Amino acid sequence: MATLGLVEYKDATPEVRAVYDDIMATRKTDFINNFWKALANDPATLRRTWESIKQIMAPGALDALTKEMIYLAVSASNQCPYCIASHTAAARNKGMTDAQFAEIMAVVGMANETNRLVSGYQVEIDERFRT
Amino acid sequence: MATLGLVEYKDATPEVRAVYDDIMATRKTDFINNFWKALANDPATLRRTWESIKQIMAPGALDALTKEMIYLAVSASNQCPYCIASHTAAARNKGMTDAQFAEIMAVVGMANETNRLVSGYQVEIDERFRT
Amino acid sequence: MATLGLVEYKDATPEVRAVYDDIMATRKTDFINNFWKALANDPATLRRTWESIKQIMAPGALDALTKEMIYLAVSASNQCPYCIASHTAAARNKGMTDAQFAEIMAVVGMANETNRLVSGYQVEIDERFRT
Amino acid sequence: MATLGLVEYKDATPEVRAVYDDIMATRKTDFINNFWKALANDPATLRRTWESIKQIMAPGALDALTKEMIYLAVSASNQCPYCIASHTAAARNKGMTDAQFAEIMAVVGMANETNRLVSGYQVEIDERFRT
Amino acid sequence: MATLGLVEYKDATPEVRAVYDDIMATRKTDFINNFWKALANDPATLRRTWESIKQIMAPGALDALTKEMIYLAVSASNQCPYCIASHTAAARNKGMTDAQFAEIMAVVGMANETNRLVSGYQVEIDERFRT
Amino acid sequence: MATLGLVEYKDATPEVRAVYDDIMATRKTDFINNFWKALANDPATLRRTWESIKQIMAPGALDALTKEMIYLAVSASNQCPYCIASHTAAARNKGMTDAQFAEIMAVVGMANETNRLVSGYQVEIDERFRT
Repeated sequence: MATLGLVEYKDATPEVRAVYDDIMATRKTDFINNFWKALANDPATLRRTWESIKQIMAPGALDALTKEMIYLAVSASNQCPYCIASHTAAARNKGMTDAQFAEIMAVVGMANETNRLVSGYQVEIDERFRT
Repeated sequence: MATLGLVEYKDATPEVRAVYDDIMATRKTDFINNFWKALANDPATLRRTWESIKQIMAPGALDALTKEMIYLAVSASNQCPYCIASHTAAARNKGMTDAQFAEIMAVVGMANETNRLVSGYQVEIDERFRT
Repeated sequence: MATLGLVEYKDATPEVRAVYDDIMATRKTDFINNFWKALANDPATLRRTWESIKQIMAPGALDALTKEMIYLAVSASNQCPYCIASHTAAARNKGMTDAQFAEIMAVVGMANETNRLVSGYQVEIDERFRT
Repeated sequence: MATLGLVEYKDATPEVRAVYDDIMATRKTDFINNFWKALANDPATLRRTWESIKQIMAPGALDALTKEMIYLAVSASNQCPYCIASHTAAARNKGMTDAQFAEIMAVVGMANETNRLVSGYQVEIDERFRT
Repeated sequence: MATLGLVEYKDATPEVRAVYDDIMATRKTDFINNFWKALANDPATLRRTWESIKQIMAPGALDALTKEMIYLAVSASNQCPYCIASHTAAARNKGMTDAQFAEIMAVVGMANETNRLVSGYQVEIDERFRT
Repeated sequence: MATLGLVEYKDATPEVRAVYDDIMATRKTDFINNFWKALANDPATLRRTWESIKQIMAPGALDALTKEMIYLAVSASNQCPYCIASHTAAARNKGMTDAQFAEIMAVVGMANETNRLVSGYQVEIDERFRT
């Protein structure tokens, strides 16, 4: 169970409801997932985290699906079960196919392998790679 | 210095040279970076790692640039200095702009933040996210 | 289930019971949590780990609650479910409020975010920060 | 060298200068460290990160020094060289003694050890620890 | 549930069955564990991963049990529940005793502790350790 | 530079010298590496860490070289530069060959890859692997 419990919409303060409303409006859904309900115990963190994600995940130089796939890749690399489940769902909502999912996982796996080979072999950065 | 040293092309066995040649041909370059020269001390690992990367990073359901950006994102999340330097260079070679780089980093940072918030608050996976 | 099972007090050797007794006396409780019961399969590790924790977590330049909150912060950062659950309970026993818990989590999240931004942007250490 | 370079005050846009000014005013210093100068290449991330840190690190249920010590503990656990150097300096500025530093490190080390023992032994969470 | 589901032998394509057959023949078992059934949704990754593991885990300069114990040690350090469970079983199949398991865990725990002490204290590499 | 500096033998208190003497006697060397000189600023941690390592790394159900190779494997997986350098040297002192080093690194890399594939695909633990 979530450490501080989950704050349901009906029990939420106006401050928390305002964030929930913006999440639902931005995502065009009536669903608030447990992450937000847990953070709602600390309204300042709820608001700051949502505002940050909203800003970061909006389409820019990268489209929304690519950003979501990077979010999923990092969550898989960090082995965070909740994050993998929620961002797999989010990426699928934005159009990620099963084939794309499998390719992301292959890259995540390979990057984790070569990151350790490089470190373990104590490889120095090539002069050419220094900015 | 690399633990087992770096194997230069002129000192390489035919088996190692064959991999080097394939790297240069595939990447359309005459440059072999230190990672491969370090791995060349173990030709089986050199070949296996190169064949795996070649297969994984080839365009498929995801294009080559997106794959490279995911590789960079995971390397930044893992805080691997060599990997960040080399995959930043690789992604730029494939067209990554400074604005795209900055957006990748913003997503990597945010994912690392929320991964810990979720874990720390002991948030349970929403029924809806279970496949 | 714990890999080597859990050693209950009634089944424990005198060597293990001596550690259990010291844990209960030090913590003023009659409760031994599963971590110790699992380690008890390796009495040397049980004793060494308990003696180390007892020494480290005793009040010193930092008070016991601050140490417990740091332990919890690191466990949340490492995303260790058992450790988060047990050290949240321990910190609450020592007086951690819900508001303090929320602030710890906010710091943990932020530190994980900026750690990756620093690494990803390849920021060099300022001369002023070198000791 | 920082991937996108460092933005010095004299070369900064008004938007970036406003953040720099707030950092210096809040911290009562005329020093802007490299982290901010690197982020300044992405003004939205510069502003968001600074506003978040300013909010999170302000005294609340925890005092400013305790928060800074937790930030340092997480950075040490994550093995981020820049972050360790900069947050050691920041914690010292807020009053951290050498003895406190040593105790933080002892807790960080121990937490990392027991986190792995718990995971490796597959210890289940005690019923009592479930909220 | 596995994101893309599990591919059972009876439902598998000839390409996937060929890998399954090789796994069972190499391991002298009729059991295919869930990891492979999950990867089978991406036959190229299934084949590449199996061929890599088969090559890496074969006896060489290190015997098969030592390799399996290192695999388990890294999985415990990474806190991957599935990997710990499966590689504990694999190591036991190859002869790992409970006493050896306990000693591996003690080393894993200690390495994680000293890795952070070294990083946190910003210890420079001794000249003698540079290759 | 090490945060609290390095304590040389000639400047050490009798308490610290006693640990240094035991390190040198146990390891049959006159060399104290920087890790211990950094920890010596906190004599309690110096003693506890040395006593723990001495106990854990002594031959038992596993021989000293195997333990050292596991220590190196975990350090490479954690990407700790100092630890990789020092434990590569220690393992070589105990007889690790270049071929063994390369095989350890291959296992470390592979374990890191499959740990993420398992997590990313959300694979459930096989009933058979539950103890």
